[in-house]
Parts: sequence; C-alpha cells; structure tokens
Amino acid sequence: MIFKEILEILGTASFAISGALAALNKRLDVFGILILTFVTAIGGGTVRDVLIGHTPVAWMKDQTAIRTIFISYVLTLLFHRAFKKLPLTLNIFDAIGLGFATIVGLQRGLEAQLSPTICVTLGMVSGCFGGVVRDVLLNEIPLVFRKDIYASASLLGGLLFFLFSAWEMVAPLAATLSILAVVLLRLAVMRFGWRLPDVRG
Amino acid sequence: MIFKEILEILGTASFAISGALAALNKRLDVFGILILTFVTAIGGGTVRDVLIGHTPVAWMKDQTAIRTIFISYVLTLLFHRAFKKLPLTLNIFDAIGLGFATIVGLQRGLEAQLSPTICVTLGMVSGCFGGVVRDVLLNEIPLVFRKDIYASASLLGGLLFFLFSAWEMVAPLAATLSILAVVLLRLAVMRFGWRLPDVRG
Amino acid sequence: MIFKEILEILGTASFAISGALAALNKRLDVFGILILTFVTAIGGGTVRDVLIGHTPVAWMKDQTAIRTIFISYVLTLLFHRAFKKLPLTLNIFDAIGLGFATIVGLQRGLEAQLSPTICVTLGMVSGCFGGVVRDVLLNEIPLVFRKDIYASASLLGGLLFFLFSAWEMVAPLAATLSILAVVLLRLAVMRFGWRLPDVRG
Repeated sequence: MIFKEILEILGTASFAISGALAALNKRLDVFGILILTFVTAIGGGTVRDVLIGHTPVAWMKDQTAIRTIFISYVLTLLFHRAFKKLPLTLNIFDAIGLGFATIVGLQRGLEAQLSPTICVTLGMVSGCFGGVVRDVLLNEIPLVFRKDIYASASLLGGLLFFLFSAWEMVAPLAATLSILAVVLLRLAVMRFGWRLPDVRG
Repeated sequence: MIFKEILEILGTASFAISGALAALNKRLDVFGILILTFVTAIGGGTVRDVLIGHTPVAWMKDQTAIRTIFISYVLTLLFHRAFKKLPLTLNIFDAIGLGFATIVGLQRGLEAQLSPTICVTLGMVSGCFGGVVRDVLLNEIPLVFRKDIYASASLLGGLLFFLFSAWEMVAPLAATLSILAVVLLRLAVMRFGWRLPDVRG
Repeated sequence: MIFKEILEILGTASFAISGALAALNKRLDVFGILILTFVTAIGGGTVRDVLIGHTPVAWMKDQTAIRTIFISYVLTLLFHRAFKKLPLTLNIFDAIGLGFATIVGLQRGLEAQLSPTICVTLGMVSGCFGGVVRDVLLNEIPLVFRKDIYASASLLGGLLFFLFSAWEMVAPLAATLSILAVVLLRLAVMRFGWRLPDVRG
C-alpha cells in the first residue's frame, strides 16, 4: 500500500540524513559522507539480517532504499544549512523511521519463529543500530546509549505490538498503532526533555 | 550435566557484569547500561556464530543466557559498589567465562569441520570479542589488545584442548582440563602481574 | 595462475602490514598486534562474506591467507623500522591489495547474482573495510573516510570492470585492466596529493 511505502521512504531518508549531517560535522570528504549516509540508513536492518541469517541482507535487493539514500545524500550536501534549521521536521521523520524499523524488525523475528523477547530485541536492533554504527565510525559513544528515551521508545513500540496482538487486533492495525505510539512518545520526549535516570557511582 | 551449566551461567554473568560496570563508569543511562550488559555477554558468541554462518545466533534460542544477563544487570545496578570491592571474585568468574567460552567456540568450529587453527581462533573470538564490542561501543581501544595475558590465555586453552585430544583423552576431560588451565593462568597473571612485551618503536 | 596468486599474496601482506604498523604505533602488546594484523588483512572480505551469507567466511578455508598474515606479522615485528622508511613500497603493495580485493569482492557479488550497483559496493567493502575495522579498533575515525581518494579509487575500479565487460572484454582482461587502473590512480593520488573536497559548514 502506497501510504506504507511513503512512511518507509521517509524513515530511510531521515536515518540517511542524520548520517550525512553527522559526517559533515566531522569534516569528512564528500565520499566519506556518502559512506556514512549509507551505513547509517541501512545499519540497523543489516545487523538484524546478519543475526538471523537472512542473507544477502535486505538492501542488496531493495532498489528503493538505495535510491532514497542517494537522493538524501545529494539533498543534504545541497541543503545542509536549511536541514540544520529544521530539527523538528528531521526529528519527526526520525521518529517515523524508528517506529517503522522497530515493527519491520519485529516482524522479521516472527517470520523466523523466534520468541517475543527476541522479536522485540530485533525491533530495537533495527531501529537503533544504524545510529550505533554511525557513532562508532565517527569515534563517539553511541548517542542512543546516552540520549533521551530512544531505544526504550523502540522497546515500548515492540511491547505494544504484542499487547495489541494478544487483544486479537489484526497485524496492520497493531503495527500502525505501535508506530504511532513510538512517534508520539519521541515527540513528547523532545517537547518535555524527559530522560532516563543514570546511576550515581 | 548440572555442574557444566552452573559454570556456563557464572561465565555469562561475569561477562555481563563487566559490561554493566564499564557502562556505569561512563555514566550511560539505565537503558544504555542494559544494552552494554547484553552486548558484552553475548558479543563473542555472536561474532563466532555469524562468522561460521550458525544463524539465528545462539542467544536467540537460549532463554537461560537471556535470564542470566537480565539478573546480572539488575544485581549490578543494585550492588555495583559491592561488586567493585570484589575484583578478585569477579576476576575468577571472568576467568571461568573466558575458559568456558574458549572451549565452546572451539567445539563449534569442530562441528563445522574447520581446521584446528581456525577452531582455536574461534575459541579466542568467543572468549574475547564480547569485551572488544564493549570497549568499541564505549569508545576505548579494546582492553584485550593491551591487557595482561588474556587473549593469549584463551589461545593456550585452545592449544591444550588439541594436545589433550591428541593424547586420546575423552572430550569432556580435555575440555575440563583446558578450562582449568585458562583459569589458573589468568589467576597467576593477576597475582604476579605478568605482561606480554610491547615493541619499542 | 601463479601471477594472480602472487598479486593476491602481496595484497594480503600489505593490508596485514598496515594493521601491524598501526597497532605498533598505538603500543599494543605483541599479541594485540597479531590480532590487529589479522583483522586488518581479513576484515574487508569477512564483512563482504557475512553480508552475502557466504559462510563460513573465506579465510576459514584459506591456508595461504593465514600463512601470509602470520609471516607478515613476524616480518613487521622484526623490520618495522625498515618498513616505515619504505612508504612508497608499502603504498604500491597496498594499491595492489585494494585493486585486487575490489575485483574479488565484485566477482563474489556476481556469483550471488546481485545487481551491478551492489557488486561495485561489495568491491568497495572488500577493499576498504579491513582498514575501517583496524581504525575502529584503534579508536580512530577510519582513515578511508578522510583520506586522499581511496574508497573512490575502488569505486572507479568496479565501474571500469563493468564498462570493460559491456565492451565484451573477457573477464580476466577486464579484471587486470581494472586493477591496473586502481593502482595507477592511487599512485597518482599519492604523487600529486589529490583530495576529494569536503563541504564547508
């Protein structure tokens, strides 16, 4: 369905742009930026596919993803000043990407007949590990380990999907509501500055 | 056999705790600490399984490991001050974990009919790469590349296993003695501060 | 054919030596240097094989590569001062390694019936990710993202191979000419200090 595909493209694009902007900030050359853009956009799904043995990994057969990433790269090179002035827009796209990747990852786990705990974990891996790879390559402690509620928003989305399914909700509706919950939680987190506690040493 | 399972749980727990303590030191939030705990405990076996194509990787089907990791996480959050005062206990557990993971990794290599050199390498990967992933995610040069004899203790364990097997020792005995050798070497290293040389530039 | 094998050995050796020298500079111990030597030499091919599901990965069945890496390691420990005085020689070997790995990676993609875009990408992964893994483990932003034209030389090699094949050139000739182009481009880059632009922020 076309609506689903548009969401998926927006999600991929926002992950790609976050990689491109981070690489720009570190003054990589234009080709280094391209690699970071690519790796950030496909990293989570790639780690997921490798862990469950779903190879060749998904992006090798997904022309749409590759085109989306390349267009995001060109747009970021051209309009990075404008993008940096639109953090809210980018954050909404990123929240959509996180929610979408979470549910796609979880469903890959179900297809491989893995337990609910593992499916939820695969959702988090899909949603978060692109950013983890991006930060490791740029020599930073991954933002997702330190940031306002992010991996935990993905966790919530995964748990809700199983809750809704237990209520015998059909999968497309359960998926849509779970993604919506991730997006709303992320928006609330950004609006109100919620954080998880750290542990005093 | 129950004794083997207790050793395996102690090994997993000690890897998990080392991840949790390292994450605590870097002031990650509580969810970041959980991810580090998990990744440190399962990292070595995961890399091993991915390299030999043994997918879905082992922890996806191992409820015991997942529970052990989660309990280790909760215990570390509650008692991290006490744990830091018990370095010897933790180091003994860690040595058991290293020995155990070494032999499990090596046996996976044998099952995949790989050469002895590769089996010993897989033992080292299983024993050491959890710590490597932990340190890379926390933006450090992996301790195992700089530390007192650690990967080399795993190497010794792997070589001994093949030596004992060549003497026609049965596998469970060869495994037990090899693990014991790793533990004793690690304890001696910690007691006497042995180090491998570096190379003057 | 013997000529091909000599080139392959020179390429593996030069990747291995680059890992050993980088590890030496960071003052790892002798065993840490061995691991870095190994990981740098086999990293690109390993990531490629894992992504396409070609497991157990190639080096697990390739005695020649393992011996080449070990000999390179010993030679680097013994003669690292001399090696550092021969940057041109090492750079020529490295360019051969890059060209060779590019074409091998691309051909693995063709065997897996992947699209030309993906095959070229696999060529770059094979050629560059050994260095990426080396730099991540040594806690540096990968050189390949910042360096004078390197991943892009691999890209050129991959594109030329497909261009030559479209001209109905036989594969061995297309491969040889593509590798030659990578080597010549890398030599020109080093001679004239060409760089890709970065993007002003």
